[in-house]
Amino acid sequence: MNDYDYHVPTDIRFGRGKINCLKTEIGKYGKKVLLVYGGGSIKKNGIYSKVYEVLEKFEIYELPGIEPNPKLSSVRKGAEMCKNYGIDVVLAVGGGSTIDASKHIACAAFYDGDPWDLVLDRTKITAALPVFTVLTISATGSEMNPGAVISNEETKEKLEINHPLLYPALSVCDPTYQFSLPAKQTAAGCVDIFSHILEQYFQPNDGAFITDRLSEAALKTCIKYGPQAVAVPDDYEARSNLMWTGSIALNHLFTFGKGGGWSVHPIEHELSAFYDLTHGVGLAILTPAWMKYVLSDATVKRFAMYARNVWDVDDEDDRAAANAGIYLTERFFKELGMPSKLSDVGIDDSRLAEMAAEAVRTSSLSTRAYVKLDASDVEAIMRMVL
Amino acid sequence: MNDYDYHVPTDIRFGRGKINCLKTEIGKYGKKVLLVYGGGSIKKNGIYSKVYEVLEKFEIYELPGIEPNPKLSSVRKGAEMCKNYGIDVVLAVGGGSTIDASKHIACAAFYDGDPWDLVLDRTKITAALPVFTVLTISATGSEMNPGAVISNEETKEKLEINHPLLYPALSVCDPTYQFSLPAKQTAAGCVDIFSHILEQYFQPNDGAFITDRLSEAALKTCIKYGPQAVAVPDDYEARSNLMWTGSIALNHLFTFGKGGGWSVHPIEHELSAFYDLTHGVGLAILTPAWMKYVLSDATVKRFAMYARNVWDVDDEDDRAAANAGIYLTERFFKELGMPSKLSDVGIDDSRLAEMAAEAVRTSSLSTRAYVKLDASDVEAIMRMVL
Repeated sequence: MNDYDYHVPTDIRFGRGKINCLKTEIGKYGKKVLLVYGGGSIKKNGIYSKVYEVLEKFEIYELPGIEPNPKLSSVRKGAEMCKNYGIDVVLAVGGGSTIDASKHIACAAFYDGDPWDLVLDRTKITAALPVFTVLTISATGSEMNPGAVISNEETKEKLEINHPLLYPALSVCDPTYQFSLPAKQTAAGCVDIFSHILEQYFQPNDGAFITDRLSEAALKTCIKYGPQAVAVPDDYEARSNLMWTGSIALNHLFTFGKGGGWSVHPIEHELSAFYDLTHGVGLAILTPAWMKYVLSDATVKRFAMYARNVWDVDDEDDRAAANAGIYLTERFFKELGMPSKLSDVGIDDSRLAEMAAEAVRTSSLSTRAYVKLDASDVEAIMRMVL
Repeated sequence: MNDYDYHVPTDIRFGRGKINCLKTEIGKYGKKVLLVYGGGSIKKNGIYSKVYEVLEKFEIYELPGIEPNPKLSSVRKGAEMCKNYGIDVVLAVGGGSTIDASKHIACAAFYDGDPWDLVLDRTKITAALPVFTVLTISATGSEMNPGAVISNEETKEKLEINHPLLYPALSVCDPTYQFSLPAKQTAAGCVDIFSHILEQYFQPNDGAFITDRLSEAALKTCIKYGPQAVAVPDDYEARSNLMWTGSIALNHLFTFGKGGGWSVHPIEHELSAFYDLTHGVGLAILTPAWMKYVLSDATVKRFAMYARNVWDVDDEDDRAAANAGIYLTERFFKELGMPSKLSDVGIDDSRLAEMAAEAVRTSSLSTRAYVKLDASDVEAIMRMVL
């Protein structure tokens, strides 16, 4: 196992009605709350009015309209509000995008320059307001980690900001809040969770046995409950298992003792930066192509292990087992209703080279990924699913 | 999944040489350190002098001689020292016993009455000094949880104290520190870890799929690396996998969404309270007997699941699979060199009834255990392994 520092201070309140704790817990920090959310779904499903009921004695300032790929302009607006109103706590009610924007706002509130500076240079982050979250879609794991992905609409960059100060102080995870989630979003969220685990699983370190086995446990959970949550949106067992799996999928548990750079996420980030595609949809299209592209004599043992331990493939031949695992992964995404081609989502070959170059430039694809990829490799992977 | 609150704020520093962080990290809290440790092993293996090297600018006060089942008298002494010297940080260098005593000392330092009061009534815990740990044996998981087990030598009680203030602030987990551990201690530690996972796994809630699968991953890790660490004491891969597994085995990850009372631990606590037996040895003797005793039509499905998912038993008949799982568990403990009878460790039937009554009185065995047990059940289980 590689050396690892693990420190996840987020307080998780998991279960029905846990939102009621916000009155006491936010109250420890102050009275002025910046309520950050996305579209109108939290008004339809009642969470919005529940927040006002629980926080009736607080001063709430609203920042609605956070985009699916949260934009720098929203962060700028939120940071200004924090400064102008003397906000004590940022409360994100939504999914990864809302939480990510809230984290960036929380640290930008203490920074005099443009918030984008903090993305480009994390050493400029010196303080952050406490971020509380009420999770409404399981996908990014942002409710239990210190990362956020922000899109700069001017430069077309989609980059990560990551700092220990950005762990949410507390996250309310009530599985019933996802009962009203459309099937498409449930499915895309499940693919995102699955991909987070894969990114950490497909790394060269074979000595982190415990971490590999834990990862397989979580992958199996996605396989069991993803389709079930899509089919029966109010299945509490499916929602709750997916919800907790989504949180631990990206709170460093599955990278403990491993490490290394990610592969499919940086490529997908370009798709959604250029085309505003749903992140999980892009991952579903790209993942099987990436698997086929990097499968080789050097990687076949790990792919075969994946196939046997996650998919119960019993083929003794490593290459055959690996191919079966990739096939079953592809079939799983299809079962979730995901498209499998870029053309299915309106992406042609006109900007592939540009996106491939950006993916390599803005990530560690060519330096620290499981199989190092240059721009021509990335373009080739995208061409496999045109 | 049951509702669950999860908040583990301990900062884990895992890997070779991580002890060097103590200078900076303890320095954040002050200069006066109470160094708590057990026998002389940390002097032989160099950790003791390393601590002094790292903390050369600190004022160190020593509390050596913490017993394998830490005694209240040691806690009293430590709490007095904290008060008299104005200690800023309690630094536990050792295994679970040393860490447990340190936690109790840390909160007793803020309490005017006898420290035992805090064990009997946790609401009297209002503050605690930060506890830092340097882990030298993987077993109890105390380095990443808020619990401690203390023996009152006057009343012959061995009870748990548990409070959120007692999470260690930071734990140094350097697998090389266990290279010099005797095989017996390595084995007993592995059984303790294994048992912690079983206690949480054998609970009636079948809806926490993710938690059950994570637990099986950790059990498999014990099975793979326990014997390996016993056979090759300086095998880094074995030591590191067991070390991290031991920490997460009891940091609530494997009880998330489950819950319920424990079964074998409360019985074993009486064995070691009455006979000063090594905890892991008592667990190895009792666990298979408990399994056989509680196996029934009501529990057979979970035992069969355990056998199939942890031990790769492929018998389709539930009862046969369950029995195979129990047999393999018993064989595993023997492979680790554990005794299998109470008579092997000098315990006869003279105090069984007394211990059984105490086990039921001081635990939730008869109210919240997987299979509820009264004193006659507990005595019957002990008689199975006389």
